[in-house]
Amino acid sequence: MDIPALQYEPLVRAALAEDIGPGDITSILCIPAGTRAAAVMLAKQPGVIAGLAIAEMAFHLLDPGAVWSASLRDGARVGEGRTPLATITGDARALLTAERVALNFVQRLSGIATLTARYAALTAGTHARIADTRKTTPGLRMLEKYAVRTGGGFNHRLGLYDAVLIKDNHVKAAGSISNAVAAARAHIPHTMKIEVEAATLGMVQEALQVKADIILLDNMDTETMRRAVQVIAGRATSEASGNLTEARIAEVAATGVDILSIGALTHSAPALDISLDFGD
Amino acid sequence: MDIPALQYEPLVRAALAEDIGPGDITSILCIPAGTRAAAVMLAKQPGVIAGLAIAEMAFHLLDPGAVWSASLRDGARVGEGRTPLATITGDARALLTAERVALNFVQRLSGIATLTARYAALTAGTHARIADTRKTTPGLRMLEKYAVRTGGGFNHRLGLYDAVLIKDNHVKAAGSISNAVAAARAHIPHTMKIEVEAATLGMVQEALQVKADIILLDNMDTETMRRAVQVIAGRATSEASGNLTEARIAEVAATGVDILSIGALTHSAPALDISLDFGD
Amino acid sequence: MDIPALQYEPLVRAALAEDIGPGDITSILCIPAGTRAAAVMLAKQPGVIAGLAIAEMAFHLLDPGAVWSASLRDGARVGEGRTPLATITGDARALLTAERVALNFVQRLSGIATLTARYAALTAGTHARIADTRKTTPGLRMLEKYAVRTGGGFNHRLGLYDAVLIKDNHVKAAGSISNAVAAARAHIPHTMKIEVEAATLGMVQEALQVKADIILLDNMDTETMRRAVQVIAGRATSEASGNLTEARIAEVAATGVDILSIGALTHSAPALDISLDFGD
Amino acid sequence: MDIPALQYEPLVRAALAEDIGPGDITSILCIPAGTRAAAVMLAKQPGVIAGLAIAEMAFHLLDPGAVWSASLRDGARVGEGRTPLATITGDARALLTAERVALNFVQRLSGIATLTARYAALTAGTHARIADTRKTTPGLRMLEKYAVRTGGGFNHRLGLYDAVLIKDNHVKAAGSISNAVAAARAHIPHTMKIEVEAATLGMVQEALQVKADIILLDNMDTETMRRAVQVIAGRATSEASGNLTEARIAEVAATGVDILSIGALTHSAPALDISLDFGD
Amino acid sequence: MDIPALQYEPLVRAALAEDIGPGDITSILCIPAGTRAAAVMLAKQPGVIAGLAIAEMAFHLLDPGAVWSASLRDGARVGEGRTPLATITGDARALLTAERVALNFVQRLSGIATLTARYAALTAGTHARIADTRKTTPGLRMLEKYAVRTGGGFNHRLGLYDAVLIKDNHVKAAGSISNAVAAARAHIPHTMKIEVEAATLGMVQEALQVKADIILLDNMDTETMRRAVQVIAGRATSEASGNLTEARIAEVAATGVDILSIGALTHSAPALDISLDFGD
Amino acid sequence: MDIPALQYEPLVRAALAEDIGPGDITSILCIPAGTRAAAVMLAKQPGVIAGLAIAEMAFHLLDPGAVWSASLRDGARVGEGRTPLATITGDARALLTAERVALNFVQRLSGIATLTARYAALTAGTHARIADTRKTTPGLRMLEKYAVRTGGGFNHRLGLYDAVLIKDNHVKAAGSISNAVAAARAHIPHTMKIEVEAATLGMVQEALQVKADIILLDNMDTETMRRAVQVIAGRATSEASGNLTEARIAEVAATGVDILSIGALTHSAPALDISLDFGD
Repeated sequence: MDIPALQYEPLVRAALAEDIGPGDITSILCIPAGTRAAAVMLAKQPGVIAGLAIAEMAFHLLDPGAVWSASLRDGARVGEGRTPLATITGDARALLTAERVALNFVQRLSGIATLTARYAALTAGTHARIADTRKTTPGLRMLEKYAVRTGGGFNHRLGLYDAVLIKDNHVKAAGSISNAVAAARAHIPHTMKIEVEAATLGMVQEALQVKADIILLDNMDTETMRRAVQVIAGRATSEASGNLTEARIAEVAATGVDILSIGALTHSAPALDISLDFGD
Repeated sequence: MDIPALQYEPLVRAALAEDIGPGDITSILCIPAGTRAAAVMLAKQPGVIAGLAIAEMAFHLLDPGAVWSASLRDGARVGEGRTPLATITGDARALLTAERVALNFVQRLSGIATLTARYAALTAGTHARIADTRKTTPGLRMLEKYAVRTGGGFNHRLGLYDAVLIKDNHVKAAGSISNAVAAARAHIPHTMKIEVEAATLGMVQEALQVKADIILLDNMDTETMRRAVQVIAGRATSEASGNLTEARIAEVAATGVDILSIGALTHSAPALDISLDFGD
Repeated sequence: MDIPALQYEPLVRAALAEDIGPGDITSILCIPAGTRAAAVMLAKQPGVIAGLAIAEMAFHLLDPGAVWSASLRDGARVGEGRTPLATITGDARALLTAERVALNFVQRLSGIATLTARYAALTAGTHARIADTRKTTPGLRMLEKYAVRTGGGFNHRLGLYDAVLIKDNHVKAAGSISNAVAAARAHIPHTMKIEVEAATLGMVQEALQVKADIILLDNMDTETMRRAVQVIAGRATSEASGNLTEARIAEVAATGVDILSIGALTHSAPALDISLDFGD
Repeated sequence: MDIPALQYEPLVRAALAEDIGPGDITSILCIPAGTRAAAVMLAKQPGVIAGLAIAEMAFHLLDPGAVWSASLRDGARVGEGRTPLATITGDARALLTAERVALNFVQRLSGIATLTARYAALTAGTHARIADTRKTTPGLRMLEKYAVRTGGGFNHRLGLYDAVLIKDNHVKAAGSISNAVAAARAHIPHTMKIEVEAATLGMVQEALQVKADIILLDNMDTETMRRAVQVIAGRATSEASGNLTEARIAEVAATGVDILSIGALTHSAPALDISLDFGD
Repeated sequence: MDIPALQYEPLVRAALAEDIGPGDITSILCIPAGTRAAAVMLAKQPGVIAGLAIAEMAFHLLDPGAVWSASLRDGARVGEGRTPLATITGDARALLTAERVALNFVQRLSGIATLTARYAALTAGTHARIADTRKTTPGLRMLEKYAVRTGGGFNHRLGLYDAVLIKDNHVKAAGSISNAVAAARAHIPHTMKIEVEAATLGMVQEALQVKADIILLDNMDTETMRRAVQVIAGRATSEASGNLTEARIAEVAATGVDILSIGALTHSAPALDISLDFGD
Repeated sequence: MDIPALQYEPLVRAALAEDIGPGDITSILCIPAGTRAAAVMLAKQPGVIAGLAIAEMAFHLLDPGAVWSASLRDGARVGEGRTPLATITGDARALLTAERVALNFVQRLSGIATLTARYAALTAGTHARIADTRKTTPGLRMLEKYAVRTGGGFNHRLGLYDAVLIKDNHVKAAGSISNAVAAARAHIPHTMKIEVEAATLGMVQEALQVKADIILLDNMDTETMRRAVQVIAGRATSEASGNLTEARIAEVAATGVDILSIGALTHSAPALDISLDFGD
């Protein structure tokens, strides 16, 4: 996992605190202290795995001596049937107490990685990239953007602070695309790009004239998008967004657009079915 | 919203901080300070709305003087077309800056409420209730369980701490269902119930003998479940779980079981399509 | 200790930060760096010990290499004289700096466990259980409820969220006990119980009719309570509260009531006299 | 209250979060939204009141529009019978939800103020002051020291950081009282005092020679303490500690000692009986 | 101030907590409760003002009713003599208690703005921009980068996460500049730029070939930098860094370089002399 | 370092989080996972070193297995040229990611220690001590006061809570110096000192009469200060403040004053030039 553990540890601690409260009363009362257990984490559905290091951390926070052994790495594709992802051995109470939190993270992130991979596959034969959006789960953006990368997708900006994205309301307030871009360019860091949303070919032209780095082709039909890409002709990065259902991805990618940004990757990916099986 | 604002305010602050960082650079540079704006929040898909108070809080945290006016309440069903949910008037920068966070909460919670309502409708004509699980988004359990209630579902236990749920691994460690229940009963608060997972009719019998309050019928086929319900005969609450796909809900509910607990309500509900439209 | 360390570690860190601030100036200036020390934790009063793991954590947070060796476990009863509870060996500065925080936790929790055990002893020969209340120290409820369990008592609900407890003001607002119970039952999780406060035998009857799980016999004199218990006749759990001074406990327990809930366990237990003696 | 609200607000928020969790389910389900209520906070035992502003904050955090009207101020003495402390009017659910937290703070702090006042009264006719110690509840030191002041007592140092207090182990490590004091004096802020613990008259003499600001007469019998005070003769502040039971306070104060520091003020003060009565 | 108050409020609260602790004992004891005061914030040195909104927040957090009236805005230049910046009227204790924290923020941020303005003035007649670095005070980066903007400077990247900056160690590990750029380009968001550090003209050439967006001319003498700028010829943004003392700024800016990034702006700016004068 | 790691660890974690965000994208993409690196921390300017333990912690938080070996201790003076301070060996990505935060702390604290040492040297031959003030960086006071000690200076009070410092506004509100001191003395802890600000010799006299522990000679010219010191004649600690520029320090110290408190030590110390050089 390329995010430092330092950065996601607070999320794992908070999730454990949320689930455990003052104690896993069932395990405390029914399982003798000191009982050992071993379990295997299994995928039960085809998909792309993401977040194993988070599961490992969840177990280790409750039993620092637990032994985790992963069978594959984040980004691995698993097929039909039951695929072992990792084994964990340690204190029985600790493993049972951490189980749900560990799975909640891995199932969600793997769900996102899986959906991303499925969408990315639809762009085969084009140079288009699938990208995420800011439509992420509050508090989990860092992890969900990681899951998108793991599934073969690309990240869009991290938040409102690391790129300029001029939308219709900004244009309205500034008076024109040109005004808005000029206002931004006069003050932004030299490390930052400017993206401009364009709903028509005329707006694409205006964005090109003021040298927008990226042009967002918003909610265009496929034919208009193809023409927009031709107009842009490599002078800016082109990005498609809006109404990019699974059925349309291949067709839109074929227009030559550079980026397809899709909110569903993070706001509507179903969880991947993953469970923890304790040995007998 | 029946959760005190005090309890979810930290989540909204954290979500805004995550998205805004050191500033919404586009709005700061393109929108003159003091510009006013009005916008309407619109549902663009049929569903059940949940979380409007959170959206309101997001706007108010950035512009305490913003005026929010809701057209309907959480729990309202909206149909096809574009349904106004609320209007917001205030500082243009503040509204644009808070927009995404406000929508991220409402879309997710409304998605959960909508899926819950759809599943609940399938139990019509039975006394079965649809309930959630602990398969919630890390950090958002309180809100997601609220969304389930809003959609007409019921909550299961909040976490590992507020009810005993004896599963196979607890039984294994304790030696038998009877041992496990006895161990729990000897120590739990008198305000707490004991639930026992049963995979067979024999286990149902054993759970009844030791007066479990709730019996979890796990992964049973429909016919076995029907017989289990007959065996229980009202002496305990019966709960079905495992493999409760949309296709099976009506059939399982018809067995007479009291509760169907379904992880998908919170781990796989797609977001409801909701947006913020700024006036011209 | 049955609470995961993860859950109380923030309390120990906060307590150390509160006491240490920018440094234990006396130890820094008067004790040469690297000095070693050994100390023994001693009870100097009869009682029941609770919280040793918290003391251990306090020392380890300041000196991860300190060696802690407990002579007995939480729940142990100590008698007159000086009873060694544990020894600690490590960096002298660290031990002196952590000493007060370690003792503050153990003295308070042992005080609660001791008072609980004294009250529990008074119920000998009955089946009554001594339970705590929500009258706990703000921020320390989890630990204080643990101390009650350690002293042989039982926990009541954890907070306002994990059981329904219908008191006079709820009844007033709902119109009647029956209305209030019906309103609750229609919406609560199936894992949750309903308790109803009853001040008179008539209210006990009404609570029984609507199948309250628990009936709280509030501020009744002993004779009325005996009759209430007879009326309930095992159809609900009976709980006595209000004015349960030490002098009345045996008499109230003898009425056959199931539970005596006593705020004084946590709000008025004197600390147990425990100190740390450094060797020569 | 002389502590800025900013400083204790986090404690009140944490206490409310601890008690409320995802919601006061009883009030939500049994009390119609919008119901109004009025209540009076009553002392039911003689004592000294402390912490009313904290109760007020608890109510206001749940209902910013609630109207609080205090009948007396912190530090007021109340007698036998039921003494109204304040009235609160507002949203019924909010008041019931905040009630327990508000009372938990006021009962504890008033308990400390009451015990302090009782002990302080025993020093009448002497110039001795009653002071607290670092034996406070973890996390609540700031408030408990406020309660001591409110009861007519005085504060000792706040923590390990704001005064030097050289005890036997520091002396042992430094070689002598003189060494320890010299080491401290060479480095401490000029705003800081040095206190030295003395168990014998010889140690008192040594502390005086090195100009300790304060001499702690630890666990001395009354006669020895009287002689120590005579030896000190106003050249340092004298402080008695150890075994200062209620029975001994007057006698020890009569020795002429300046300060009696007593851990029981904060670690063993029983709560004052205070309740909230809702009107009919 | 273009940073939302939500984002810096925690810093102001923490600073107040750090300074106030359990209370401003001098003001509490010497100033009667309810005393009113008025004060004026004065600059006593020429410079550029930054951070007035933070001072205002500090006062308002202690006295929500205090009235703040600013005489000028952030970014204003003040000359010799005493220049009024703002007046504040409110509770005397609150103003005295907040004074130091308010000034600590404004003095530091104004110091940074002032130094930035001085350096920016030295680039007059060129198109060069003065930019900051990541050499900021831990925890205050957001505010210090604001101060740089306020003084007429520009921000560099916010942190390690929002732009690629390939330095010598990255090149060494990747094998060559080309390899490093290719590895980055294959995975970064399309909204992100790539900057490459070049110590020689040869490295500049290699960076140009792989189309680096920005080339960092590190520690070059002025003549080499002039040639580097000529080589780049507008095909990338050019940035000078290293050894940019005040004496060299004009000369380096005259090379035609686009950006001069200077750590001293934030790590070595002396505070601007600003005080709060209370009226008589 | 004499501050427990527990107390500054949150500052280091926050600084790393601030700089790293969701990841050091350059290192992740350009440096193969598992690459090892060694680096040496070098001072490139004469000065006094402070904060090495914080740098070590920054590296260890990202690579717990990194090996840190310091060549000298905090407080060491380094001369001209490049002086190795410590070496660090570990994961290459981790070292590069932590580098800037480690340096930001050490450069700032060493800058403060260096300036303090320079000022302290100017008092040679007198008994005067150089002390800091409350003019510290918000959030870093604990560390900055440590740096002052490390440079051979002394600390003034920690905050508003640990000593009384009566300034002109307090005197005005209380009516007179005598009133203010009396009000304070009647309530403060016996461990606390009282300091009084005096602008004239008359005020010095009044402060002496009421036995102020410390007298702050504020903004006096050197001759007046010399007379004030003579008037005080050892009956109180004397402290000079205001306008203590480097040029005046020796002269003011020669007046016999005990303490020179200087805000510039913490608000205007330039960073010491320190860097991390990676081996080839």
